[in-house]
This record gives sequence, C-alpha cells and structure tokens, in this order.
Amino acid sequence: MTTPSPPADPAGPATPSGSGEFGRIARFFKPLAAGFPGSLGLANDAAVFGVPEGWELVVTMDAMVAGIHFLPDDPPADIAAKLLRVNLSDLAAMAAEPLAYTLATALPKALGDDWLAAFTAGLAADQARYGIGLAGGDSVSTTGPITLSLTAFGLVPRGQALPRKAAHPDDCLFVTGTIGDAALGLAVALGTLAPADAQARAHLLSRLRRPEPRLGVGRGLRGLATACIDVSDGLVADLAHIAEETGCAALIRSAAVPLSDAARRAIADDPALLVTAVTGGDDYELLFTAPESVRPDLARLAADSGVPISEIGRLAPGAAGDVTVLDGAGCPLALDRRGWVHF
Amino acid sequence: MTTPSPPADPAGPATPSGSGEFGRIARFFKPLAAGFPGSLGLANDAAVFGVPEGWELVVTMDAMVAGIHFLPDDPPADIAAKLLRVNLSDLAAMAAEPLAYTLATALPKALGDDWLAAFTAGLAADQARYGIGLAGGDSVSTTGPITLSLTAFGLVPRGQALPRKAAHPDDCLFVTGTIGDAALGLAVALGTLAPADAQARAHLLSRLRRPEPRLGVGRGLRGLATACIDVSDGLVADLAHIAEETGCAALIRSAAVPLSDAARRAIADDPALLVTAVTGGDDYELLFTAPESVRPDLARLAADSGVPISEIGRLAPGAAGDVTVLDGAGCPLALDRRGWVHF
Repeated sequence: MTTPSPPADPAGPATPSGSGEFGRIARFFKPLAAGFPGSLGLANDAAVFGVPEGWELVVTMDAMVAGIHFLPDDPPADIAAKLLRVNLSDLAAMAAEPLAYTLATALPKALGDDWLAAFTAGLAADQARYGIGLAGGDSVSTTGPITLSLTAFGLVPRGQALPRKAAHPDDCLFVTGTIGDAALGLAVALGTLAPADAQARAHLLSRLRRPEPRLGVGRGLRGLATACIDVSDGLVADLAHIAEETGCAALIRSAAVPLSDAARRAIADDPALLVTAVTGGDDYELLFTAPESVRPDLARLAADSGVPISEIGRLAPGAAGDVTVLDGAGCPLALDRRGWVHF
Repeated sequence: MTTPSPPADPAGPATPSGSGEFGRIARFFKPLAAGFPGSLGLANDAAVFGVPEGWELVVTMDAMVAGIHFLPDDPPADIAAKLLRVNLSDLAAMAAEPLAYTLATALPKALGDDWLAAFTAGLAADQARYGIGLAGGDSVSTTGPITLSLTAFGLVPRGQALPRKAAHPDDCLFVTGTIGDAALGLAVALGTLAPADAQARAHLLSRLRRPEPRLGVGRGLRGLATACIDVSDGLVADLAHIAEETGCAALIRSAAVPLSDAARRAIADDPALLVTAVTGGDDYELLFTAPESVRPDLARLAADSGVPISEIGRLAPGAAGDVTVLDGAGCPLALDRRGWVHF
C-alpha cells in the first residue's frame, strides 16, 4: 500500500539504489527474503506458501515501540533480535518449528540508513540462527517513535500444539533456563542496579536484549507437557494465566526458582530483588505443567537440549488463578495474583 | 509480550472488565476472534490452523499510521475498514479467498475506549462482510500517532496464485471498477477539491475511506490473467511494476480509463485532475494483463461479479517499466515512469 499523499522524497522510488521506500526494500529487505521461496522475492502483493500434509500453521504477532518495549538507544541489531525472538518464543511455547515471518516497520524519516543496515543485519544473523526467512511486510514512515510489528509462522504436527488450557489440577510446574535476569537487566539498563562485576552486568543486559527462544525444548514437550506458556509478563503473572485456565491455584517454592549466578548475587545483596525476579517480565523461558510421571523424560530432554529444566512447584486447590510464592522460610511473598507487589 | 517497565495502570490487568490491556482484549478483541476456531479464543501464545490439502496460504501485511495513511479525525470504523480492505485487496490480487487476520495496534494512552469500540465495530462489520475472523495479535501503547498493522491470510488452490511476473509482452491491460476516485477523495478531504454536488463529494470520500477489495474478480481471474496487481501506488506506478517485471513498456489510452461520474465531472471542470486520477494512489482496483483471447471470459466475469472490467491499453515494446498515457488527442501526458508528474 502507499500513502494517500505524494511521498516527501519523489526521487526515492525511481531506482532500487535510491533512498526511498523501494530503494530501502531492495537494499535491506530483499536479501532477507532470498532464502524463503514463498516470499516471491517481495515482488508481489503477498507471499504464497504451502503447509505440509499432517502439519498445522502456528501464527503469532508482537509489536514493539521505542521507549516502551526497548530503549531508544539500544543497538539496532539487539532490537531486531528481540523483536524476532519474542515471536519465536511464542512459537516455542506452542511446540512449533519456525518457518518464516512478515515484518512491518514504521520508522521516523530522520532515522538514517545506518540504523536500518544494523537492524537488518541483526535480522539476517537471527534468520541464520533459527532457520527462517522473511516472507513479506511493509515499510512506512512515522512522525512518532520507531514502531515494529512482526508476524511469525511456524509448523506443528496436527493436534500437537501445546495449548494453555489442558493442564490437570495436580500437575507439577516446570521452567526452562533461569528466571529474573531480564528484569534485573532492565534495572541495569536504567541505572538502578549496578553489579560490581562487569560479567554479571553483561549477562543481565544480554538476557534482557537477546532472549533465547526455547524452540528445542518446546518441540521436545510434545506429548509431555499438559500446558505451556512463555514467560513474557513475568513468572507469577504467566502462571496465573495457566492456573486460571485450569480453574485452580498454583504454588511456587522460591528456593526452587532457577537463578543465574548474576541474579543470585544481586538478590543476596538486596533480597527485595527476589520479587523483581519472579514478577518481572521478558524472561522468554518456557513455563509448563506436566504430571510427575514424566520427570525422567524431562531430565532426558534437558540433557539432550542443553537447557536446564527446573521443577518449581505445582498446581494446587484454591481460587482460579491465585498464585502463591513461598520464600525460603515457607512464608508467602506479598504479591497479588497478577504478580504486582501489594503495598 | 509485555513492556519491560511496569504498566502505568496496575489495576488494569486484574479483571477482564478492567481498562488495561487484558480488559481491552477481552471486551473488544475476543468477540472478533469468536468465529475463527484457530484463534483459540486469543487465550494462547499463538493461533493454530490448518491449510486444506491442495491449497496454499497467501499472506500479506500492511501498516497504517495516523497523519500519513489516514487523517487523524477519520471515523474509527472507516480506519478499520481501510486497514482490513487494503490487505484483502492484496489477497484479491493473488486470487485468494480470505481466511483470517492478525492485528497489532499501537495506540496513544489518551485514546479512549470509545475510539476502540468504534474501531472494533468497524472490524466486526467487515468480518461479516468478507467472511473472515481475527486469529490473534498484539495491543501496545505508543507515545506517537495511532499505528496499526494487519497481517491477512488467504487460501488459493495450489499453483493458482496470480503472480506479477508472468505477463506476456503483447498482453492487453484491464482494470476493475473506476480509477482516481480515492485520489480525488483525498483532495476533497484536504479541502483542495470541493464538488458542488454533495453526492459526488460523498462518493469520492467513500472510495478513499472504504475501498472495495475485488475478491470475486480476483478468484475469477485464475487461469485468465497472466499478471495481476492491486492499484495502491497509482495506476501508472503499479503498471510500471508489471511492465518492469515483464521487461517491456506499457501504453494506456486515458480515454479508456474508467471514471466514475463524480471523477468525470471533476476532470471536466479541471482537466489537470486527469493526471491526479491516473497517478494517485489508493484505488485498490485490480490491474491485470491477459491475452486478447480471453476478452469474452472477462466480459462474462464482469457480468457475473457485477464489477466492471475495462480494457485500458496494452503492454508494448520499449524500455522495461516505461508507461505512456495517451490523452484524448493521442498525445502522451508528461509523467515519469513511476507516475510522478515531470516539471
């Protein structure tokens, strides 16, 4: 589509090497689409691709706005990685294999080609990392902040997507990786947390800016997990979603919540940061329910994938969606059901 | 996904009837997803749906920004209709049947629920009109203008999507409906054109704000058209795309370009508006190439669909992508190949 008014840069569309929308598409986006035949080279009105027999399509869409979802001076390649990975994390939570994505960028006119070059280089690196390609999209200008939206496509064997709904009220709770790094990383980025150790700082920032979608674990959970969600709103809030859908409460032992060394040290220095860790967002780890009987399978999956899987608690009788976090002494932390601290 | 910083309205997520993101999703978006089972009721990380055997998925994504793609005080239902229809028009140009869509909204916090109610009512009306449902999406806030992006999904029998590339250098050119109304409608909206006749004003504005995706004609063109595109950048610019892909030039007889009564009268009053009509964007009519031999089929398709199909010129020998528009006297209008007027 186009603007209803003439473009500000009428020279732009004339040549593929120009600086207008057509030139930018040719220079920065067409190379990203080259490896995905369904993109038709971005030369058509739409992408066209098939879904293999016996498989279903999994589709997710996330938007990010500068100043809200990322800091305006974050490196463009980190912004690209985060945009792609939060979507891939949704695919992981559905046990899907990544296939392709479409991208809409609304960029301020003042943003130079350098920014776009770094942003698309970040996309290219992650495309290679996760084996996906650009299928299509749109590039428009905005008078506001950088606004990005991405629709990711994955494939899952028919009937094997992991829904949130199917948990059993006596299932155990598991998470991948470590929890709370991204929330502590945001505190580092905002200057409210300053670990003395440079490596700890770098770890927390990296976990904020470059989450790791747990695609391998997600695939491995087919037939094992009863419900699965990726931790984006925060461990407590996302667990509340599962508990609510299951019609029960949930109990987490905070001592069982897996923490990185950097997070553990930060919490040792300031125990209040434990609440930040279990309620902060942007972990993009998988939180799932499963019966006790599959513990050996999960241990094997963790060993095979190289991604730790920790049992942190269980679903429990109680009001639908209530989440209780017990501290080391067995006392409940003062949180409301959505993970916000009560004052 | 969520914001890395705590939400401004911590009370929001607590209940489905609240005013936060969860409340808005429950009130305004879940009803739009009720008719599309693959949405899983918007309760999961992603949508899941199948593609019938023998069919392919067609995917397109368009973004719109207030102040650039629509006027900030346009009625919200018109904005919704335009957002959906420009995407459906892309599906039409690929001969696809509409299936579903995902939507990302970035809205200023000051925008009230009234706006969202009117916007989603517009979506609901068009969902019923075109037989599609909401599959998923994202709702975020922005400090900038309203920014919307929509990814539309369609189905086409395998191998029958209409590509841009396959035109033959001696094919004829056809368009559906009438050309130029949207560009003249924009002039009306901006106050630079003021037809005396209220009905003409309303017609031009309506064509700007509520384009009609030519889905029936698109489907009917399977096996008839050699290349097809929807007119979004303007008749001349979009024809240049087809001509360029075909490696030839193109010739339009302006007298053959179909005009509405309102457009014809406006051009009679100010002949310079003919250039506006053939170069202005947002018509969302189908422009396609086909051999002379299918003229009778096209006449039948026009009669069956109730949508006029007009033959306006042909592809021609010449530099790839060059488009010439001959006026009533057989003289070329002074345009460059992309449809911008030379001065």
